[in-house]
Amino acid sequence: MDAVAARAGVNRATVYRRWGDVGGLLADVLDAAGEDDWQPPDTGSLVGDLAALNHEIQAALTAQPPVVTALIAASFRSERADRAQQRLWEDRYARCEIIVSRAVRRGELPSPTDARPLLIASTAPLYHQLLLLRTPPDPHLPEHAARTAALAASAGAFAEPPSVGDT
Amino acid sequence: MDAVAARAGVNRATVYRRWGDVGGLLADVLDAAGEDDWQPPDTGSLVGDLAALNHEIQAALTAQPPVVTALIAASFRSERADRAQQRLWEDRYARCEIIVSRAVRRGELPSPTDARPLLIASTAPLYHQLLLLRTPPDPHLPEHAARTAALAASAGAFAEPPSVGDT
Repeated sequence: MDAVAARAGVNRATVYRRWGDVGGLLADVLDAAGEDDWQPPDTGSLVGDLAALNHEIQAALTAQPPVVTALIAASFRSERADRAQQRLWEDRYARCEIIVSRAVRRGELPSPTDARPLLIASTAPLYHQLLLLRTPPDPHLPEHAARTAALAASAGAFAEPPSVGDT
Repeated sequence: MDAVAARAGVNRATVYRRWGDVGGLLADVLDAAGEDDWQPPDTGSLVGDLAALNHEIQAALTAQPPVVTALIAASFRSERADRAQQRLWEDRYARCEIIVSRAVRRGELPSPTDARPLLIASTAPLYHQLLLLRTPPDPHLPEHAARTAALAASAGAFAEPPSVGDT
């Protein structure tokens, strides 16, 4: 809050009056991020699109200063930042579903293929390694995670809705 | 720290003298967790082992009170807790590598198969959904993520070391 006040050339109290607390400020930052016109990569192939998306994620999670990592860390401490983080992720995954529908149209994937779990299978290893395990960035991982998810998807891993009632 | 002092029937200052801060206390909790004799499931099949492991992870991440989630959240705030969390994860993934070597021995997977990225592909969607996206627990996810990773692994997704120099 101090840094924001200093950068804006206003009093600390003004920042608190506007946003209440750090969580409120971060929630606004996250909501603003969701209002951009970002579109997922369109490279002409499923693996190309997923790998390019993973490269964007790896770049964001290893950027300095670590803004994205700090926002995610803050979402563990503030309920407002948490909800804003969830809205942003929901928005991003929804926008990425076109990667899967294009691949289905090109005949790369069976129809129907459930987009969300395929996108999560492709992207989750990046977040897991960089954000939770905190291993050093692996330059091969964006491409490898994309290939692994695409391979499973081509084999029909996301083709069927989960059967009802076998829990 | 107050809760720990109350539960132990000692003075707050005693707890601080022993552990310095919350991060130090959590680091000891995490290190103690790594000294158990936990072994990964041994069900007789790769999908069975990975699914059983994922069920354990889902149970841990949705348990009440949310001890595991709180420890992971704390690792974003304390460097000592962070390092202890990394040690615990390294220990757990290392213990789980036997799941992959058993599957190779049974002829379910090509030899060699790189165990770590396969284990991460199988488990990462659980952590991603429950810890980061914070979607409600999906009872199908443990089995589905296991099947997806096993399918990709059988197709050779983890059979080759990443080629050197193509970064």
